[in-house]
Amino acid sequence: MRLSSYFLPTLKETPNEAKIASHRLMLRAGMIKQSAVGIYSWLPLGHRVLQKIIQIVREEQNKAGAQELLMPTIQSAELWHESGRYDDYGKEMLRITDRHKRELLYGPTNEELITDIFRSSVRSYRDLPLNLYHIQWKFRDEIRPRFGVMRGREFLMKDAYSFDLTKEDSDKAYQNMFVAYLRTFARMGLRAIPMRADPGAIGGNQSLSHEFHVLAETGESDVFYDKAFDSVSLEDMANADLEMANKLQSLYAAAEEEHDPDNMPIDSDDVQSGKGIEVGHIFQFGTKYSEPMGATVTTPDGDQVPVEMGSYGIGVSRLVGAIIEANHDDKGIIWPESVAPFKVVIINMRTNDEGCTGVCDDLYAQLDDAGVEVLYDDRDERAGVKFADAELIGIPWQVVIGPRGVKEGIVELRSRSGGEPENLAPADLLSRLIG
Amino acid sequence: MRLSSYFLPTLKETPNEAKIASHRLMLRAGMIKQSAVGIYSWLPLGHRVLQKIIQIVREEQNKAGAQELLMPTIQSAELWHESGRYDDYGKEMLRITDRHKRELLYGPTNEELITDIFRSSVRSYRDLPLNLYHIQWKFRDEIRPRFGVMRGREFLMKDAYSFDLTKEDSDKAYQNMFVAYLRTFARMGLRAIPMRADPGAIGGNQSLSHEFHVLAETGESDVFYDKAFDSVSLEDMANADLEMANKLQSLYAAAEEEHDPDNMPIDSDDVQSGKGIEVGHIFQFGTKYSEPMGATVTTPDGDQVPVEMGSYGIGVSRLVGAIIEANHDDKGIIWPESVAPFKVVIINMRTNDEGCTGVCDDLYAQLDDAGVEVLYDDRDERAGVKFADAELIGIPWQVVIGPRGVKEGIVELRSRSGGEPENLAPADLLSRLIG
Repeated sequence: MRLSSYFLPTLKETPNEAKIASHRLMLRAGMIKQSAVGIYSWLPLGHRVLQKIIQIVREEQNKAGAQELLMPTIQSAELWHESGRYDDYGKEMLRITDRHKRELLYGPTNEELITDIFRSSVRSYRDLPLNLYHIQWKFRDEIRPRFGVMRGREFLMKDAYSFDLTKEDSDKAYQNMFVAYLRTFARMGLRAIPMRADPGAIGGNQSLSHEFHVLAETGESDVFYDKAFDSVSLEDMANADLEMANKLQSLYAAAEEEHDPDNMPIDSDDVQSGKGIEVGHIFQFGTKYSEPMGATVTTPDGDQVPVEMGSYGIGVSRLVGAIIEANHDDKGIIWPESVAPFKVVIINMRTNDEGCTGVCDDLYAQLDDAGVEVLYDDRDERAGVKFADAELIGIPWQVVIGPRGVKEGIVELRSRSGGEPENLAPADLLSRLIG
Repeated sequence: MRLSSYFLPTLKETPNEAKIASHRLMLRAGMIKQSAVGIYSWLPLGHRVLQKIIQIVREEQNKAGAQELLMPTIQSAELWHESGRYDDYGKEMLRITDRHKRELLYGPTNEELITDIFRSSVRSYRDLPLNLYHIQWKFRDEIRPRFGVMRGREFLMKDAYSFDLTKEDSDKAYQNMFVAYLRTFARMGLRAIPMRADPGAIGGNQSLSHEFHVLAETGESDVFYDKAFDSVSLEDMANADLEMANKLQSLYAAAEEEHDPDNMPIDSDDVQSGKGIEVGHIFQFGTKYSEPMGATVTTPDGDQVPVEMGSYGIGVSRLVGAIIEANHDDKGIIWPESVAPFKVVIINMRTNDEGCTGVCDDLYAQLDDAGVEVLYDDRDERAGVKFADAELIGIPWQVVIGPRGVKEGIVELRSRSGGEPENLAPADLLSRLIG
């Protein structure tokens, strides 16, 4: 993509309304534009990142055996009357009346709808286990939306729902998703710590429930965790299995609400504290919806029992903010390569120099042909502006090409995450960046 | 995907509410489930098709130089007051009031929002031409939703918007999109006929406007077109260029409303008639929104002028229905390969025969490893049920494997679109289906 024709409205100044780094940087990098309070348009650069995250989430859900479908954003209130939640859900639910005076709502979550889909076609234990997920926009009418996409009103979420005959099978489904979550976040370059959460009254005492918190200095809540987590590498997490899941679940980890410094199962010297951002929440809710809504299956003995359910959420649009909170410096964003909008940015230092532009054009064409996602800063701008924008939008690799280097047959490769710049022949650069 | 664990709730009986083939078949094939009047959940099989269509639309938009972003579903009423459309738009607009009594709406279209995005960052003719698109759910509160996804209330649309300095440039942008539309529909196996539409009062007499109608016996409206269209192959359309666009625009084609049999520019013997389904609509609307909303750019002379705009829509969810209307028989759907949910279905005729199941398992693993999208009917069901389901869901290639063939070292390959079954050795089958 040539930057001269790319719609990338970066801002030089920091917008007043943005209180946290990710919000500031997303606005400044031209990733989003607020269109109403707590509602954002995703501009091309932001949209690319969102798609990368969606793709990783999708791949890991599919690998875990979950099946993708897509429920609509608008739901009928009827199902929520059945579950009893229509009246319980407060003002965060966006309630709508259509032209025929029917009650609708913009789904804040999908337990009712998925339970309805299940009960209308599944009859027997033979069709279990089943795990269905979708990636869809939700709406919660927050009283005070803030922090950009971190606490918006319209937000993108992946929610999966498991259906099993017994609590024991449901536990297996849960552990399977737990593994998928470790892998998912690690593939995005995130250290996400699973923390035992309060299952509350929902599914009973035996219910499993974990929140996944990304560690970031600018996180929203205080978290406490066994320092043994620090010895688990991102690569280990990206290749997690059930054994790893068990190991991590045995380690102490708790967010503020759950943490009691006077009553910890491990020595306080072994506890690290930090700031966390919640990016995922998984929990079992047993028969909370299947019972009132009549989602039953026949057992091998011919009995009818309500199906055991679990719910597995990932805040997909929120992850964009969380990744930035965990990966930035005072100059801008530092994208992990797996979610970067482009892998490489070519900076043409002198667009009016024929030799320099020739080398840039060639490299751009070759990288593009090889399927490398490359942004080419071919704008007629000062080098300083180009460097500043490249740092701001955080593309992992910068290829800097100037007339002097071109004469010597070299180009410069810089990593956005630091380290010494390298001088390379164009052919060597290509083999470094391709494949 | 093994069918024994795939969520594919096919129906034996035809639901009463479905009046047209695509609606009936989508319900029967387990592709969708109605969740409220005119609002559908896309079950896994339907979701796969929808994704295929999205991907083709996206690729052709990107190739044409349009840039993808994503605007939200919920919009503030403010912008619509600015354009003057808030009061004009009737009851089809779903109007919403949030907890703070602010007026919102579920976007039925996005001219206002995209104009706002444009005006907030583009200042100069130097930043033109620009074409921005998104693929997003829209809502129109139809008084009488019907025909399944063909006329639903919540529907998926691709809408692109072009921005140009002059009418002449806008014409270029229009023709560029026209070509992309020919390619897009042809890649889905659709003969879509472009028909000159009435630009109405919107953009003035000089405005360009075309509707694209898919020919299908069960189409909603009568269409009339020069028989010369019949000599243009799908392949020609899939490789369309500006020359082809000009050629097709010179041919007579009109939907009912625009057709006057007593006043045609060509001999009536050269006119074919048929039934059409509108799947795309492109039109220029000049400065209709840029003027009232102040979306201006500076010209090379330093003047400020409102930007010239065009709008390019494709009914993405509607296309699923249109493709089925154009491709089915009395047994079920006949997917064009480019949008099929799976390329191949393996039918295991005897799951309790070890040899037969061994061959099936091997072929399934090999096709899957090679990246072929394959559905494996490994259910413990009668052959008749399996054939009926395979016909119903319309996978292009059926591989039928029974104990007798296995003993002779052959499997049977059938095309859903007809022709004689072929007997092949498994190795030959693989080379036919892979690559």
